[in-house]
Amino acid sequence: MTDKKKIYKPNPVSGFPEWLPEVRLVEQQWLDRIRATFESYGYCSIETPAVEELDVITAKGGDADKEIYVLERLQADPNEKKEARLALHFDQTVPLARYTAQHFNDLVFPFKRYQMQKVWRGERPQAGRFREFYQCDIDVINVDNLPLSFDAEMPAIMWEVLSSLPGMENEKIQIRVSNRKVLMGLMDGLGINDKTSVMRIVDKMEKIGRAKVSESLMRECGLKQDQAEKILHTVSPSQGIDQVTAVSAQMEEGLKELSFVMDQLSHLPKGSVVADLSIVRGLDYYTGTVYETVFLDDPGYGSICSGGRYDDLAGSYINKHLPGVGISIGFSRLFDRLRQQEKLPVGPKSPADILMILPSEEGRAQASQTARILRERGFKVELYHAARKIGDQMKYASKKQIPHVWFPDTGEVKNMETGEQVKAEADTWKA
Amino acid sequence: MTDKKKIYKPNPVSGFPEWLPEVRLVEQQWLDRIRATFESYGYCSIETPAVEELDVITAKGGDADKEIYVLERLQADPNEKKEARLALHFDQTVPLARYTAQHFNDLVFPFKRYQMQKVWRGERPQAGRFREFYQCDIDVINVDNLPLSFDAEMPAIMWEVLSSLPGMENEKIQIRVSNRKVLMGLMDGLGINDKTSVMRIVDKMEKIGRAKVSESLMRECGLKQDQAEKILHTVSPSQGIDQVTAVSAQMEEGLKELSFVMDQLSHLPKGSVVADLSIVRGLDYYTGTVYETVFLDDPGYGSICSGGRYDDLAGSYINKHLPGVGISIGFSRLFDRLRQQEKLPVGPKSPADILMILPSEEGRAQASQTARILRERGFKVELYHAARKIGDQMKYASKKQIPHVWFPDTGEVKNMETGEQVKAEADTWKA
Repeated sequence: MTDKKKIYKPNPVSGFPEWLPEVRLVEQQWLDRIRATFESYGYCSIETPAVEELDVITAKGGDADKEIYVLERLQADPNEKKEARLALHFDQTVPLARYTAQHFNDLVFPFKRYQMQKVWRGERPQAGRFREFYQCDIDVINVDNLPLSFDAEMPAIMWEVLSSLPGMENEKIQIRVSNRKVLMGLMDGLGINDKTSVMRIVDKMEKIGRAKVSESLMRECGLKQDQAEKILHTVSPSQGIDQVTAVSAQMEEGLKELSFVMDQLSHLPKGSVVADLSIVRGLDYYTGTVYETVFLDDPGYGSICSGGRYDDLAGSYINKHLPGVGISIGFSRLFDRLRQQEKLPVGPKSPADILMILPSEEGRAQASQTARILRERGFKVELYHAARKIGDQMKYASKKQIPHVWFPDTGEVKNMETGEQVKAEADTWKA
Repeated sequence: MTDKKKIYKPNPVSGFPEWLPEVRLVEQQWLDRIRATFESYGYCSIETPAVEELDVITAKGGDADKEIYVLERLQADPNEKKEARLALHFDQTVPLARYTAQHFNDLVFPFKRYQMQKVWRGERPQAGRFREFYQCDIDVINVDNLPLSFDAEMPAIMWEVLSSLPGMENEKIQIRVSNRKVLMGLMDGLGINDKTSVMRIVDKMEKIGRAKVSESLMRECGLKQDQAEKILHTVSPSQGIDQVTAVSAQMEEGLKELSFVMDQLSHLPKGSVVADLSIVRGLDYYTGTVYETVFLDDPGYGSICSGGRYDDLAGSYINKHLPGVGISIGFSRLFDRLRQQEKLPVGPKSPADILMILPSEEGRAQASQTARILRERGFKVELYHAARKIGDQMKYASKKQIPHVWFPDTGEVKNMETGEQVKAEADTWKA
């Protein structure tokens, strides 16, 4: 130890958010609420490691390669046995597919699971995007066939979640559902081959508008004007799905599936979940139903909850046919938006219900004992740490917004909001 | 899409555990229990990012360098702005110290926080050790002075946690407390300079035994026989701390602090927390109280819950004096030990209380509605996904160990354990 200490001043690492205790407390309420809703539908929890083998991660997932973080051991021994390269997962769908294949014989199908973990994206530091964030996913995977009713259960659960999160009560959100078979079938009927490019452009509708989409379809995909118009007409938001005429068997199937899903959602408030054929989603593994969720007063913000049906993602890792459907909340981005807009009910800096006063060092045993009795009855009780002036101890309770202060020597408890102070017994007191 | 699909068969990645749903359910019970106990003492939650700047991580933490995972972006652009190297945290103490310094002005002191996150150790793959695991920590950090009562609160909380985890009820565990000032002061009194090496050897007492410790002290640290004997005599487990004679002021202070801490723990069952001067802990940042926790019938297994007082860890990052004390459960290692010993109460593969039968496709609306009523009342209800034979649906409930099956068409509910089947209303039924 030298006398003059060396200080290494740390900087916040951009893209890796962390919250103060009072904000974290609300984050916990959100996570608890989401978990409770997922479980209320019988979904089980799993957690997968933060890492997967790099080859597993890159086997699927579109153009996510450039966002992957790989791990290196700082002091790896060059002589030790080589192992597969490890990378941090960038979503929970690929890990779920791998998990399902790996534990296939030990799972009960349909396998209904939820997963609430952090994921990582190796974004450029200057991009200002989250590089670490929570995702909250539900997925169902089955062997050979997966009933379409699950495609309806996904947005029903997410509507319940999103409309019940503390601070989200007044947000106008809408879940939009489509089915890729409609657009795929339409393109087949129109003799369009480069379907991926067309979908990528249609996906930009909300951002760049109808005119630019039309122009791009013709210029970039070589569509004729009438082809582009037919596509635009079909995906038009004003178009009810019952007005769309199928031009191929696949398109008809897509329309039928979408109708079934919407029928199953009729118990939800009007406008909460709607059919919208302009929704296609970027990822290329979706094969049927797809979902997006927007703030109606800020649609350009992008989707806060998305997903869809995939035919055989888990089947990449095992010789089985394992169709699935899933939906995911981009938790941290949503949470941080509400935090920045000061819409979160940020309150106490402590979970405690009661601050137990320490009247004197001699009174410590009695104060501790009173605190123990209250804890056994389910109350959260912080014992003040030093026999300071009562005023100082009260000030501490105020700063942390602890709602009650207990005086073990006089057997009284003070409600910090109303100022009321009454006699109380630890084994009978009610908040 | 080709007809013959290519299969990438994944292997479990050694050192990164993952559990089946029925084991994960118990893991959640453990995490919930720990969180509830920490909060019942008024500790607030924080989470820090998985990464820290490499320089922050290596600034403290002894010889942990070789266990660090650094991150690389798979497709970093060589022309982009360079940023500090990022590494996965290997514990939660260094991140806490950095967090406390960084948010100093926004925290209320003493800052009492708990943290339950995964940490990573870049172990050699063949070592068979966990490379990703949960740690559950509580720490208190204060400005300038930290009352010694917190040194007693740490093991009191952990005793309550460890003795109440599902499956731990019959385990004989013991928390052992010491104070480094005793041994440091003794070495001062004996004129021993190489204190770190002596402590490192004394730390091996449980593993290598008294004779080998004595030999090592003489051979490796150059101690004379009477010096080694005095040390061994002092740290002897049969030695009560009131029988130890102080040979220096620091030693006397250590003995006094340890006595105070033990006095505060007198309400705990006899033998649950004991003073043991042979406990020194490996990490060099501890300055006073230290803790270890062992299985009494398997002391060689090593400590399952450890920690201690550190004088100024957070002060490495800010020009303040910030003493702290903390204790940490090596969660995953403990959990996996009980899992392997089949001591965990592993049960259902689903969180559901009720499986709602789907009697027919026409009966879906009624079944869904009955499920919704029960969910609103707090029950977890899985709706069976297809109108299969009732026998198949019952079998599914059995496989997942769902305790009740509800027949929405007849309005009856069956208790799967007792076989009893009775009439029930969704809005009044009790489990």
